[in-house]
Amino acid sequence: MAAPLRVCFFGDSFVNGTGDDACLGWVGRACAAGRRNGTDLTCYNLGIRGDTSADVLRRWEHEARARLAPEHDGRLVFSFGAIDCCLRDDASQVRVPVDQALANARMILASALAWRPTLMVGPLPVCDRETDGRIATMSAALAPLCVSLGVRYLEVFHHAANSSSWACEVAAGDGAHPNAIGYTAVSDAFHRWAPWQACID
Amino acid sequence: MAAPLRVCFFGDSFVNGTGDDACLGWVGRACAAGRRNGTDLTCYNLGIRGDTSADVLRRWEHEARARLAPEHDGRLVFSFGAIDCCLRDDASQVRVPVDQALANARMILASALAWRPTLMVGPLPVCDRETDGRIATMSAALAPLCVSLGVRYLEVFHHAANSSSWACEVAAGDGAHPNAIGYTAVSDAFHRWAPWQACID
Repeated sequence: MAAPLRVCFFGDSFVNGTGDDACLGWVGRACAAGRRNGTDLTCYNLGIRGDTSADVLRRWEHEARARLAPEHDGRLVFSFGAIDCCLRDDASQVRVPVDQALANARMILASALAWRPTLMVGPLPVCDRETDGRIATMSAALAPLCVSLGVRYLEVFHHAANSSSWACEVAAGDGAHPNAIGYTAVSDAFHRWAPWQACID
Repeated sequence: MAAPLRVCFFGDSFVNGTGDDACLGWVGRACAAGRRNGTDLTCYNLGIRGDTSADVLRRWEHEARARLAPEHDGRLVFSFGAIDCCLRDDASQVRVPVDQALANARMILASALAWRPTLMVGPLPVCDRETDGRIATMSAALAPLCVSLGVRYLEVFHHAANSSSWACEVAAGDGAHPNAIGYTAVSDAFHRWAPWQACID
């Protein structure tokens, strides 16, 4: 096996793998695929249900430093932004306006990249039409931000939003999260992604 | 499905599932089994490689509060103590003496139980004869401590230490951690354990 790698995945319920009866999510499947390919990979899944960019900003560094000591070959993968686009409980406004979300993303990714190799995966749809419209805008806006910071960015929104099996699993589940087929599709896209392949090579 | 349950698992590399090519560990397998049985369970795996009781004491509450809001039905499962029994890098002494480890465990478990339903799983062997002798002592000493606190305790040390398939997987792996067969055995023992069954029922 190649040199041991420890990867922290930060983000929301989709990072956590919520709704997946196999309890792997896309993160667990991608890490298992990496191990099958010969990478000695330790996975730290730090997705939290309901986390916005503001929540990730608050906690990521503290939690990452508890897991990646200076002597470890540690990497960071982020995926957030979907919950930012959901309405607050009183439906008055979105949880985090897109400008603030992008400012949060800039702070997170700039600090992360200065510390460890860092990748970003775009937000996924929550299968509510209005919210998904905002998530599509957020997903598109994160691309040039990542380019400007030198962080490689994988958009996955449209892949999921246009998938009938994703929609079926969401409908059969809690109305927002897919199950094994949906998470496998995201995992496959991530596993094939050249920047991740370069990371685990 | 029953009411949604969110469970935080805190501990060391065995909680993380280090060495498992499926990237599930015993925690992921037990949570998947719970979901198959009809429990809407969200798993937060907060095992960290190399964590002693002192490390868990330092971080568990902060990380748990980020994941379990007051309105969530949240549960806590701890499993630590093996790394405490390993020698420091200079081999001068163990990382955490057993008395200190038990004091740490008491602080962790008393605070945890005052906040959320809490279970404890004993430490696992690391397949070094001298260290495993100390882990066996630690595992036995945690039992009366848990009784005194009213925390249900599952010992798993001897199950793993006496298993030839565990030893084979450890030898084929990194010399300390099993793979799918070993983690499945711990998961099965945990899944069958009445206090966990009562938790997910």
